[in-house]
Amino acid sequence: MIQIRKLDSTAENFKAQLAAVLAFEASEDEAIDRAAAQILADVKIRGDAAVLDYTNRFDKLDAQSVAGLEIAQDELRAALDSLAPARRAALQTAADRVRAYHERQKKECGSDGFTYAEADGTVLGQKVTPLDRVGIYVPGGKAAYPSSVLMNAIPAKVAGVQEVVMVVPTPAGVKNELVLAAAAIAGVDRVFTIGGAQAVGALAFGTATIPQVDKIVGPGNAYVAAAKRRVFGIVGIDMIAGPSEILVICDGTTDPDWVAMDLFSQAEHDELAQSILVCPDAGYIARVEASINKQLDAMPRKEVIRTSLTNRGAMVKVRDMDEACEIANLIAAEHLEISAENPQQWADKVRHAGAMFLGHFSSESLGDYCAGPNHVLPTSRTARFSSPLGVYDFQKRSSIIHVSQAGAQTLGKVAAELAYGEGLQAHAGSAEYRLK
Amino acid sequence: MIQIRKLDSTAENFKAQLAAVLAFEASEDEAIDRAAAQILADVKIRGDAAVLDYTNRFDKLDAQSVAGLEIAQDELRAALDSLAPARRAALQTAADRVRAYHERQKKECGSDGFTYAEADGTVLGQKVTPLDRVGIYVPGGKAAYPSSVLMNAIPAKVAGVQEVVMVVPTPAGVKNELVLAAAAIAGVDRVFTIGGAQAVGALAFGTATIPQVDKIVGPGNAYVAAAKRRVFGIVGIDMIAGPSEILVICDGTTDPDWVAMDLFSQAEHDELAQSILVCPDAGYIARVEASINKQLDAMPRKEVIRTSLTNRGAMVKVRDMDEACEIANLIAAEHLEISAENPQQWADKVRHAGAMFLGHFSSESLGDYCAGPNHVLPTSRTARFSSPLGVYDFQKRSSIIHVSQAGAQTLGKVAAELAYGEGLQAHAGSAEYRLK
Repeated sequence: MIQIRKLDSTAENFKAQLAAVLAFEASEDEAIDRAAAQILADVKIRGDAAVLDYTNRFDKLDAQSVAGLEIAQDELRAALDSLAPARRAALQTAADRVRAYHERQKKECGSDGFTYAEADGTVLGQKVTPLDRVGIYVPGGKAAYPSSVLMNAIPAKVAGVQEVVMVVPTPAGVKNELVLAAAAIAGVDRVFTIGGAQAVGALAFGTATIPQVDKIVGPGNAYVAAAKRRVFGIVGIDMIAGPSEILVICDGTTDPDWVAMDLFSQAEHDELAQSILVCPDAGYIARVEASINKQLDAMPRKEVIRTSLTNRGAMVKVRDMDEACEIANLIAAEHLEISAENPQQWADKVRHAGAMFLGHFSSESLGDYCAGPNHVLPTSRTARFSSPLGVYDFQKRSSIIHVSQAGAQTLGKVAAELAYGEGLQAHAGSAEYRLK
Repeated sequence: MIQIRKLDSTAENFKAQLAAVLAFEASEDEAIDRAAAQILADVKIRGDAAVLDYTNRFDKLDAQSVAGLEIAQDELRAALDSLAPARRAALQTAADRVRAYHERQKKECGSDGFTYAEADGTVLGQKVTPLDRVGIYVPGGKAAYPSSVLMNAIPAKVAGVQEVVMVVPTPAGVKNELVLAAAAIAGVDRVFTIGGAQAVGALAFGTATIPQVDKIVGPGNAYVAAAKRRVFGIVGIDMIAGPSEILVICDGTTDPDWVAMDLFSQAEHDELAQSILVCPDAGYIARVEASINKQLDAMPRKEVIRTSLTNRGAMVKVRDMDEACEIANLIAAEHLEISAENPQQWADKVRHAGAMFLGHFSSESLGDYCAGPNHVLPTSRTARFSSPLGVYDFQKRSSIIHVSQAGAQTLGKVAAELAYGEGLQAHAGSAEYRLK
C-alpha cells in the first residue's frame, strides 16, 4: 500500500497544507558551489589542459587530448545506422514532429521582426537574429535521454543557429548510442564527451579546442547547475531545472487506470519527482488510489515510484473544477493534464502551466516524446514567469531607431528637457546638436 | 588633453588589443555576495521586521512599519502635478511614445499565441499570458532616473501585468519627485521606499506588507545585483547589467562635434562607461579627437567623462565600413550608432547589438528618452544572446497539446517505442493505454 497524502480544499488549513506539499528547496550546497567555481576558474586559465585533467579524473578516462574527446560526425551517423528499424523510425518521427511544431512557432513568434515609419519619416523597429553558437549539455548515465537531445537541438537549428555544440560525459568511456543517434538526427554540429562544471566552463570561456558558445542549455547535476548559474551573464543559460512535476486535474470521466499510470510516468523519473491529482469527486480519487496499488508491482521502477508518491505525491479533493483551475494557477505546474470532458473550458481559466495536456487522450508521455511542443518546461512554479524552451530562446532582438531630420526636431527637444532633469548635459547636448 | 587609446585594425596584435579594451569583469566580491545572502535569509524568515530594520539602518530612516514606507497614489499624482509644465509635457510625450512602440511590439511578437489542427484532429499550440505581478527596482541617489521608471513599467503594463510594484530607496528620506511623477505616468500600482538586498528579498519572498512578485527587473548596486542573482529561479530576473557602452561606427560624413558629444553622452554616465569610435578615415578620427578636447571643459561632468574616455574609451581605424561592421559584431555593443550615409546597408551586416541608431540624426540620447524603443539593453557583449527589455519579458508561454483519439494511436506507438528505449515503462504504459 502506498500512503499518498490526501488534502481537502474545504479544510481550514488547506492553503498551508498545499504549500507544504509544494515546498521544495534545491539544497544550496556551498561545497558544491565552491568546487564548481574552482573548476570554472581553472578552465578559464588553463583551457584544454584543465578540461582534460578533470575529464580523465572524474570520468575515469585516459584521453591524451581534448581533440581526442570529440566524436566525429561519422560515428554519430554510424550510431543512427545501428539502431533497430522501429526505434530509428520512432526517433525520426519524433524529430520531424518536433521540428514541424518549432517551425510553426518560429513563424508565429515574431521572428521576422518589424519596422514602421512615423509621419515625419522616423523609422522604428526590431530586428530578430539567431544566436551564432549554442552549447547543449546532455547528462551521462541514468538520465541520458535521446529525446532531450532532440528537444534542445532542434529549436536551435530551427532558429538558425549556425553551430550547435553538444557535450555529454561518458563515465568509464561508455557511450549511449541512442543519444549519439539523436544528435545525428537533430543535426548537432560537434559533440565532445565531456561533462560537469568543466564542460560548462569550456563552453562559456572557450578553449583552444572547444569553441566558446553564446548560450548553454540543457539539464545537469548539481555541479552543472552551480556552474551554469555562475557563468550566467558571460553566456546565456536556460532555467535551472528542478524536479519534474505533473498535476492532473480530472473531472472523474477518465479511466482511473489511465490517470494512475500518468501519475506513475512522472513519479518514475526520480524520487523527488512530484505527481498530484486534483479532482472534485472523492469516489474517483479512491478509484485512482486503488488502481495505483493494483498496478504498482508490475512497474520495473516501482521503488522509485513508491518513494516519489509517498514523499511528494498528493491527491486533492476540491469543491468543483473551477476550484481545481484556481489550484492549478497556484501550483503553476510543469505538466498539467486537464483530463476531462470539454477540457478547453478549463484550459481557458489556467494562466500558469508549462504545458497543458487536454482531454483523455493527451497523456504527458505523448508530449515528452513526439507530440511536437518542447518537453523542456519550467519547473518548481517558475511557469509563473517562464516558458517552455523554444525557438525564441535561440533568437535575440535588436531595436532599430532611424530618426529623420524632422523627427530629430521634436524628439530632440523632449530628450534635452528630460536630460537636463536628470543632470546629464552631454545627453542634452547630443540631442540639441541635431536641432536646426 | 584626453589620451584616448588608438587602435588600428591592420596591426598584427589588433584582436588582442581590442579584447583588452573590451575586457571588463564585474568584481565578484565574496563579501558583498555573503552580505546579500544573509539579508535575503533574514528577510525570508523575519519578513517585514527585517525589511524595516535594514531600511532604517542603511537608509538612515526612522520608520515605524513597512506600511509607513509605502507612497500613496495621491503623493505620486501630487509629484506629477508639481512638475514645471515643460518637464511634465516632455515626460508625458516620452511615456506616450514608449507605450506606442511597446504596443506595436506586443502586436508583432506573437502575443496572441497560436493553435493549429492536424489532419487527425490533434490540436497543438501555444498560449501567451502576462505575468501576474512584477517588481521594479529603481535606484536611489545619483542614478535615480525617471526615464528608467517609464522604460521598466510601461512594457509590463502593455503586456497586461495586473500589478506593478516599485521599490526605490530614499536615503535620509530624500525622495526624487521626478521619479515619483514618472511612476504616476507609467501607472505603477504600488511604491515602497525600500532598496538594497532587503527590497529584492521582500519582492522575491513577499512579506506581510509587500506582495510577492513573479519577476524583478531594474538596475541596482552590487548588493542588489548579488541578491537578484541569488533569487533567480524563485522569481524571474532581467539581466545583471554591466557598465553602459556606446559604439559609433562612422563613415566620416557626420559633424565631428556631434560624434564627440555622442561619445560624451555615454562617458558621462560613470567612470566605467565605455565609448568607442570605429572609422575608416584617420583624418576624421583626428577631427573627433580635436573636438573632444575642444568641448570637454564646458561639460559639467567633465571629470567623469575624462576618466571614462581615458580608461575605457578607444578610437579604432579600420580598413573600410565592412570591417567596421565585423568589429561591431565582435563588440556586440549595447548602443550602436551607425552614423553614416545610407546606414541601412551597414545595419544589414550587423547581427549583434542591443539597439542600432541609424543615420546622422539618431543620437543615442533620443533613444534613451523618447524615441520609443526600450533603453534597458544588454551590456558587456550580452547582446550576442539577449534582447532589449520588452513586452515579451512580461509574458510567458504555455504549450497546448490536445491529442485526438486518432492521434493517440499514431503518437502512442512512437512514444512507447522511445520510452522503452529510455527505460521508462510507465511512460510507455501511459501511451499504450490510449491505444485501442
